[in-house]
Amino acid sequence: MSAYDPSNVFAKILRGELPSHTVYEDADTIAIMDIMPRADGHVLVVPKTACRNVFDAPPEALKSVALSVQTLARAVKSAFNADGVTIQQFNEAAGGQVVFHLHVHVMPRFDGVALRPHTGAMEKPDVLAAHAEKIRAALKNL
Amino acid sequence: MSAYDPSNVFAKILRGELPSHTVYEDADTIAIMDIMPRADGHVLVVPKTACRNVFDAPPEALKSVALSVQTLARAVKSAFNADGVTIQQFNEAAGGQVVFHLHVHVMPRFDGVALRPHTGAMEKPDVLAAHAEKIRAALKNL
Repeated sequence: MSAYDPSNVFAKILRGELPSHTVYEDADTIAIMDIMPRADGHVLVVPKTACRNVFDAPPEALKSVALSVQTLARAVKSAFNADGVTIQQFNEAAGGQVVFHLHVHVMPRFDGVALRPHTGAMEKPDVLAAHAEKIRAALKNL
Repeated sequence: MSAYDPSNVFAKILRGELPSHTVYEDADTIAIMDIMPRADGHVLVVPKTACRNVFDAPPEALKSVALSVQTLARAVKSAFNADGVTIQQFNEAAGGQVVFHLHVHVMPRFDGVALRPHTGAMEKPDVLAAHAEKIRAALKNL
């Protein structure tokens, strides 16, 4: 496994060098909108700790991420009135990882509706902003 | 969301009422071979705590599961000399959940090799037993 590379986009977002639609932040994690969502309301939970993926993550980071994933799963289900939530976490390119800072995908799901394919197409910023606002509102009412 | 139903197959495995290929056990979790694997070495991490999915899981169960997922991710990568690992966790039927006791899928991955489709076909018991033995051996050498 390669070493952690601090030039990845999530590290840049954590350092404030790139913008994001951040919906949640606590001492150890943030949650941001995926800019290539496979479902409306697709968010990413990202630890503030620098780690590449599950293989090198410190235990405390994994525990913090797990709790934030639960919070965001409840929030996106509520915000979009979803029937379920799919959670995915990819490790190394063969495992599906594209950005090499640990992150967990949290995606609202609806009965009979498949995830959209990962085409690489970016969602419109105003759509992401509106979805982010719905999730922030849901987080306040959890 | 429905209440937890203790007649699900993972609850039966935890109570010893159904057999499993168990590769790992600690105070809070077990890891068992998925009998319909989407990749060789596909394991499931299951908390001993009775919970349906991410929505109702106690925080302590989520933290224990996260740590066991890391242990199993390292073990299956080593056991199968994999290039990566894909982790998935499904919540409610719309989210992909089939057995309604919280569980996390941990699947070894190889460059250029897709996950097998979820056909519902069961793997041969001797194949699962051999894969389980490889994972147990890898766990001893982590």
